[in-house]
Amino acid sequence: MTRRSDAKEKMIRSAVRLQRMHGVAGTAFADVLADSGAPRGSVYHHFPDGRAQLAAAATEHGADWIAGQLEQLLAAGDPLRALDGFIELWAGIVREEQYMAGCAVAAGALDSTPGSAARRAAAAGFSRWERILTDAFAAHVPVAQAEGLAVTCIAAVEGALILVRAEGTLRPLERVAEQLRQLLVATQQTDPASDGTASRPR
Amino acid sequence: MTRRSDAKEKMIRSAVRLQRMHGVAGTAFADVLADSGAPRGSVYHHFPDGRAQLAAAATEHGADWIAGQLEQLLAAGDPLRALDGFIELWAGIVREEQYMAGCAVAAGALDSTPGSAARRAAAAGFSRWERILTDAFAAHVPVAQAEGLAVTCIAAVEGALILVRAEGTLRPLERVAEQLRQLLVATQQTDPASDGTASRPR
Repeated sequence: MTRRSDAKEKMIRSAVRLQRMHGVAGTAFADVLADSGAPRGSVYHHFPDGRAQLAAAATEHGADWIAGQLEQLLAAGDPLRALDGFIELWAGIVREEQYMAGCAVAAGALDSTPGSAARRAAAAGFSRWERILTDAFAAHVPVAQAEGLAVTCIAAVEGALILVRAEGTLRPLERVAEQLRQLLVATQQTDPASDGTASRPR
Repeated sequence: MTRRSDAKEKMIRSAVRLQRMHGVAGTAFADVLADSGAPRGSVYHHFPDGRAQLAAAATEHGADWIAGQLEQLLAAGDPLRALDGFIELWAGIVREEQYMAGCAVAAGALDSTPGSAARRAAAAGFSRWERILTDAFAAHVPVAQAEGLAVTCIAAVEGALILVRAEGTLRPLERVAEQLRQLLVATQQTDPASDGTASRPR
């Protein structure tokens, strides 16, 4: 692998990891260079618009990665098992980062730079996750309910990650998972055969 | 009002507001002084341990304020109406700050300073909110369920605030409120008289 954009990709991956822990304001170019091992010249070569551009790229990369995970988990048509997998995914990330990990996309949303590109990238990312979840849930419950469930799953997991970070244990994520499971049970009850068509709205 | 600690209180209130918008890392002493109008000398007089001490004080103040609001809203013994009031409270704060407001306590939790006092204050605050909500819900449902509901209400609202900030509308908070209402309905169903004793666990 000696592709020309290797340095850029390494920097973005480092920025995702650092942004997860330190937020946008706490992630300096110097830290990203140190973490990624990319040469100093990469900064203005790959990110001519500066740190804001890197923050937006990291937010987008983080959002795309989660979107891919969600699509994969939901592919089997079983929202409850997908939820379990999604919680397990986050639990793994949190453990790996010694309970200091947050979500890189939430970090983008919390960027307070006026007209922030990271905030726009976060909005696009959340909106994409919501669409993926809504489509999956809408195979089992009416669309309006599917949308509410989708927003709530995203919000509750994002909030749980903040509580986990404060408390230093996975307990909040586990409690939230139990309650989300209760809400999602509706997606099974209306469609016991789980063939994804019983109450499909279209 | 010419109490000696006026400058300190003003600084803490300003720090809560700024931390809500810019996080701990984005809230400098200079901004707090400008916002509060407190004299420069106040900084090391009132916060000899520096910015970390002010961030912790702001996190604690924000947590205490929310705890007081929760206690007041729950005093009537009706969790569903208390939820509505809590959502309306946050909607008001968000509108007032032009959708840039987050939660000052979440900001404390996201502080990434090693051994952060703000993070400890956030943990204590979340834990206090959880106790208040658990006690209220436990008057209607078993304690384990009450704890799960409490954690989920806090997490979902915290996460919704992040989505609201990204999207620039109150829609995520409204959708989350609807789903939390569904979960909390259990606190009414097991205790239709709402006299707070029917299924009290002790």
